[in-house]
Amino acid sequence: MKIFKTLLQLTLVFSINLSGFAQAGYDLWLKYDLVQNEELLDSYKRNLQSYYLNSNSLTSKAIADELETALSGLLGQVPERTTSKNEADLQFLIDDGLDLKNDGFTIESQRGKTLIKSKTEVGLLYGAFKLIGLLQTETNISVLSIKEESKIDIRILNHWDNLDRTSERGYAGFSIWDWHRLPDYLDPRYKDYARANASIGINATVLTNVNSNALVITQPYLKKVEALAAVFRPYGIKVYLTARFSAPIEIGNLETADPLDKNVQNWWNEKVKEIYKVIPDFGGFLVKANSEGQPGPQNYNRTHADGANMLAKALKPFGGNVMWRAFVYSSEEPVDRAKQAYNEFQPLDGKFDDNVLIQVKNGPIDFQPREPFHPLFGAMPKTPLMMEFQVTQEYLGQATQLVYLAPMFEEVLKTDTYMKGAGSTVAKVVDGSLHDYPVTSIAGVANIGTNINWTGHPITQSNWYAFGRQAWNPELSSEEIAVEWIKKTYGCDYSVVTKLKDIMMKSWEASVNYMTPLGLHHLMGTSHHYGPAPWVDNLSRADWTPYYYHKSDAAGIGFDRSATGSNAVEQYAPELEKIYGNINECPEELILWFHHAPWDFKMNSGRTLWEELAFKYQDGIDQVREMQSQWASLEGKIDKVRFEQVSMLLTIQEKEAVWWKDACMLYFQTFSKKEWPDFLEPAQKELEYYKNLRFPFAPGIRPRW
Amino acid sequence: MKIFKTLLQLTLVFSINLSGFAQAGYDLWLKYDLVQNEELLDSYKRNLQSYYLNSNSLTSKAIADELETALSGLLGQVPERTTSKNEADLQFLIDDGLDLKNDGFTIESQRGKTLIKSKTEVGLLYGAFKLIGLLQTETNISVLSIKEESKIDIRILNHWDNLDRTSERGYAGFSIWDWHRLPDYLDPRYKDYARANASIGINATVLTNVNSNALVITQPYLKKVEALAAVFRPYGIKVYLTARFSAPIEIGNLETADPLDKNVQNWWNEKVKEIYKVIPDFGGFLVKANSEGQPGPQNYNRTHADGANMLAKALKPFGGNVMWRAFVYSSEEPVDRAKQAYNEFQPLDGKFDDNVLIQVKNGPIDFQPREPFHPLFGAMPKTPLMMEFQVTQEYLGQATQLVYLAPMFEEVLKTDTYMKGAGSTVAKVVDGSLHDYPVTSIAGVANIGTNINWTGHPITQSNWYAFGRQAWNPELSSEEIAVEWIKKTYGCDYSVVTKLKDIMMKSWEASVNYMTPLGLHHLMGTSHHYGPAPWVDNLSRADWTPYYYHKSDAAGIGFDRSATGSNAVEQYAPELEKIYGNINECPEELILWFHHAPWDFKMNSGRTLWEELAFKYQDGIDQVREMQSQWASLEGKIDKVRFEQVSMLLTIQEKEAVWWKDACMLYFQTFSKKEWPDFLEPAQKELEYYKNLRFPFAPGIRPRW
Repeated sequence: MKIFKTLLQLTLVFSINLSGFAQAGYDLWLKYDLVQNEELLDSYKRNLQSYYLNSNSLTSKAIADELETALSGLLGQVPERTTSKNEADLQFLIDDGLDLKNDGFTIESQRGKTLIKSKTEVGLLYGAFKLIGLLQTETNISVLSIKEESKIDIRILNHWDNLDRTSERGYAGFSIWDWHRLPDYLDPRYKDYARANASIGINATVLTNVNSNALVITQPYLKKVEALAAVFRPYGIKVYLTARFSAPIEIGNLETADPLDKNVQNWWNEKVKEIYKVIPDFGGFLVKANSEGQPGPQNYNRTHADGANMLAKALKPFGGNVMWRAFVYSSEEPVDRAKQAYNEFQPLDGKFDDNVLIQVKNGPIDFQPREPFHPLFGAMPKTPLMMEFQVTQEYLGQATQLVYLAPMFEEVLKTDTYMKGAGSTVAKVVDGSLHDYPVTSIAGVANIGTNINWTGHPITQSNWYAFGRQAWNPELSSEEIAVEWIKKTYGCDYSVVTKLKDIMMKSWEASVNYMTPLGLHHLMGTSHHYGPAPWVDNLSRADWTPYYYHKSDAAGIGFDRSATGSNAVEQYAPELEKIYGNINECPEELILWFHHAPWDFKMNSGRTLWEELAFKYQDGIDQVREMQSQWASLEGKIDKVRFEQVSMLLTIQEKEAVWWKDACMLYFQTFSKKEWPDFLEPAQKELEYYKNLRFPFAPGIRPRW
Repeated sequence: MKIFKTLLQLTLVFSINLSGFAQAGYDLWLKYDLVQNEELLDSYKRNLQSYYLNSNSLTSKAIADELETALSGLLGQVPERTTSKNEADLQFLIDDGLDLKNDGFTIESQRGKTLIKSKTEVGLLYGAFKLIGLLQTETNISVLSIKEESKIDIRILNHWDNLDRTSERGYAGFSIWDWHRLPDYLDPRYKDYARANASIGINATVLTNVNSNALVITQPYLKKVEALAAVFRPYGIKVYLTARFSAPIEIGNLETADPLDKNVQNWWNEKVKEIYKVIPDFGGFLVKANSEGQPGPQNYNRTHADGANMLAKALKPFGGNVMWRAFVYSSEEPVDRAKQAYNEFQPLDGKFDDNVLIQVKNGPIDFQPREPFHPLFGAMPKTPLMMEFQVTQEYLGQATQLVYLAPMFEEVLKTDTYMKGAGSTVAKVVDGSLHDYPVTSIAGVANIGTNINWTGHPITQSNWYAFGRQAWNPELSSEEIAVEWIKKTYGCDYSVVTKLKDIMMKSWEASVNYMTPLGLHHLMGTSHHYGPAPWVDNLSRADWTPYYYHKSDAAGIGFDRSATGSNAVEQYAPELEKIYGNINECPEELILWFHHAPWDFKMNSGRTLWEELAFKYQDGIDQVREMQSQWASLEGKIDKVRFEQVSMLLTIQEKEAVWWKDACMLYFQTFSKKEWPDFLEPAQKELEYYKNLRFPFAPGIRPRW
């Protein structure tokens, strides 16, 4: 036994060095390296020598494959599959009597036997991944009593991927969907994608961009979609597509897409039938309508409800859902874009069919580094509202910055809306418990691409992981999730876990500080959103310019959304309206979101607003430098390839943080006319230098020719 | 020792299974798995226990790293680096007295000592790769006497990659150059790319598309280019860029790009100085001018020589070269596009500066499945002509077909031009021996992309490999190269080697047969070149249509390039003109390239031309089916991931072969009015079906929005 172990430890050394090629990161958090704790390893090996699984379905095959792969790696022994239930150390059991929804499962272990039970095979798969995760994180499994079920029905990724494989707001290369070679060629990535998602409870995916192309619902593409659905099905993942509202015109040869037109309704009914004939468990449609130039029901003077319900009625017989996005803005320039979604959707509460979910971004603007929660949460008790998080880092560092997003998601989910009194958190809106929604969902705009490590930045794999875990259980703490992810991805070494966790946990606040502190928002470069450009004030629409959002002048800075301004605060519950609407009570991290504050406004720190701004920018830079030195101290404890990758990226992040500080502080200084504070590092260049920077090939935007 | 071996064999099993993730193919032909032949393994281990390398340069570090990585994997033992030369089993020695050019090297071994010698460190690196390759291919190394030097000075890849990471005619995903994150983030792929290239003797690379963007020669991009050059430098690889002829206007603010204008000349002189300041060993420029809409000297009524020499003079002080492409066609529609390059360039022989190479595609049209060699080869004795092969399969199956291109390259290189009597092969033109060229080069348009396995199709990695090997030595046989590649990539199992070699060696002729047999050419779909579209006859230029190239009518099929037609045959030596120009002497594989042959023309087989066409299409399909069954017989001998990948792709290839047969034969039948031969499988669909197929998102074309 000892020899075998030594042998396996050697195996590990060699498996890393065997080829000189750098492939680090492809296996995500499903790294099945030998367990290092010898005592635990011995106990795992004793207690997991055999397993029983009474099914030959594709899902059972997935369980068996995963288990054998995981235990070969983690324990250095392949478990034997037994035909007799009672003989097996590990038993997978379907139990219809369990009171568990959403593929929930239980794991009970004692006296060397471990029982994983669920009503569904996918539940057993989730249980298998849970057990594997316990081994990866070096948890004692000899006495277990676990019961898990998700509070959220549909835990779904949104891929903003185009049919030519470009990915809007994608920073990890290009789309992993190789449409051209589908349906006959199945890239091995598809199965690995399904495995990774199932391991964190993601059970649905939207394959195509919300700025959609109707071609994807024509026969040649539906066959390609079914090929993907067939790979995902054993892993409990349903496929959704984006529906282009004008599809009846573009591919149906109709003259209108009016949702009240019988021919249009009929066209969608037939189209949906056709889809289900090809993909029997199709999930439904995600729709971006009447937003940023996309067609929608308002083109025909109909409401969002008219549009959504038309599609919902077509999908209803097959059990499909419509996810209708609330991210809209009208063609006229608004006084305050932050108010628009609420104004358009809140009055429609109760008007939607029961298989429609309204998909609401976490904040009222657009995935900014920090926003207050979206005022629709809590305001539509009769309509299932689902959360849309952005896992891809459009405004949060894109391809180059380490920003762990889970603390931001956690902040939003835990915020109290007060809509049914204290304790009415956003999480309780979204999980349906506050308003007893018939269906619940959390969506995440994926950060997945063709990069070998899937997400471009090795550490932002954690955002995919955390999204899945928080969608499974919106009450989980981001810190707990970070620890899980680190152990599964980098092993259980104490200093790696503690230091990397610390880096990750401070990274979001750091990014807010060096980009948009104190409630500032949307200061990013035009179109690509890379880097700072607060000076842009002359685009075709004012609400596309950074200036619209910070409104700096000689008097001060910030968007007045109090009663003296746009009064967006009235969209929140009175308890919050009172706090947000009062510059002296408003949380400082949101002060410039809700108020146009004077440059000399006294902050809690005793500093003036101008000084506080400077302090925050500098603090953000200092935090990044601390992240750098913490990471540097892990040299030798992280494999060389990933260690160097992250080191290089942190160097870029530090440069970018300084760039943000210089560009923003120099620009704001032209209004404040205040002195550059002593504690603020001198600017490296003049303001004009930053204004003249151009990034014609920044990633994530549509290629231009 | 025995235990250690068992241990290592186990290692191999585990290293494949350790994670369930599919990464097969990333390590290309540098797979360093344990040598399976025990006798050889023992001898390797005895004879390679230590090595001596007397340098700490970056190239020496690359040698040491590669050697240690390779021997750890192949032998299961890490060699010791000694400080005393004579003690070492393996000695790397710089020897200035050697009569070897182009980083040539010698390997001498006897009595357990192996000496690798070269005048340069890069030569030692090549020697190291040679030795490693001998182990990978299970060759006895106890008595060696090897001397190798390349006949070709510059062995260069052309990446048709754009700054937004799309890749024109790329079928393996997108560009591996992550421009946005350069220069500070170095993707681990860059080093692996350099290793792979150095291992096959490639010593230069053009990073950007011949349809070029002047931005790449501005400061921000030059810094990015230098970051790549720094990764490649230790591996002996120089970086080239494409120069946009109109750059002086676009980025230089001049009003003209006239090569005889002093300001323009001065601008280029200064620009080149600037480039060399950033990249001291910059290789030079590749230029596509006055072709397919690209700007060039003819815009100013100057010649190609005027344009090329202007750049050459700027590069000359720094040792840089100009590679000026002969692939041109004028803005007027020609009688015969095949004649244009010769007509434009041959009269300029002797007019180019000595650091200009004219880069000539292997055939006179455009990388067709089979073309006669380009008549410029042999026709410009005073001008170094370099070969341009296309390794990416624009017209040869793109992303889905297994076509081993080396036999095609070999056919071209071994063809006799007769320009200085019999034996004046294309290879001897290109290697400079025929005309005593001062500099020689072979270029290959790369098939490399972001796909995990680099080339999209696992087997077409062999085309990259073979290109490098043939550029190193244009006399090598494609079969020999195939065996090398298979052994290095899939191991030395006898049935794998023989069957896969057979599959590869027949694959090119099969593709010619099912796509464009008997000299047909350019029948591919408009713009994307995917699949057949011989019926297209109405584009804005006739010479962009397939019809222009096959000219089918009631009388027959084919392009008359004999004296009765365009007389393109006169561009060849009289010996060839006579053969090519006579329908009864013309090799049948080129008959429709040179002649408009009657449908009833009697072929050598006794069949009519119409029957022979049918026979060839059917034969191509049958060959693909044989490839399928041969591959299927290797199940269990190839790792599961790659086995399944190739199986799926062969299924697509068979479908595509049938599609070609149906589409072409149905269409040609509308002219021949002949019966569908009995031996030809019935068409699966009507001609209209094939005519209506559309591929708006076929890969390798510029994204359109």
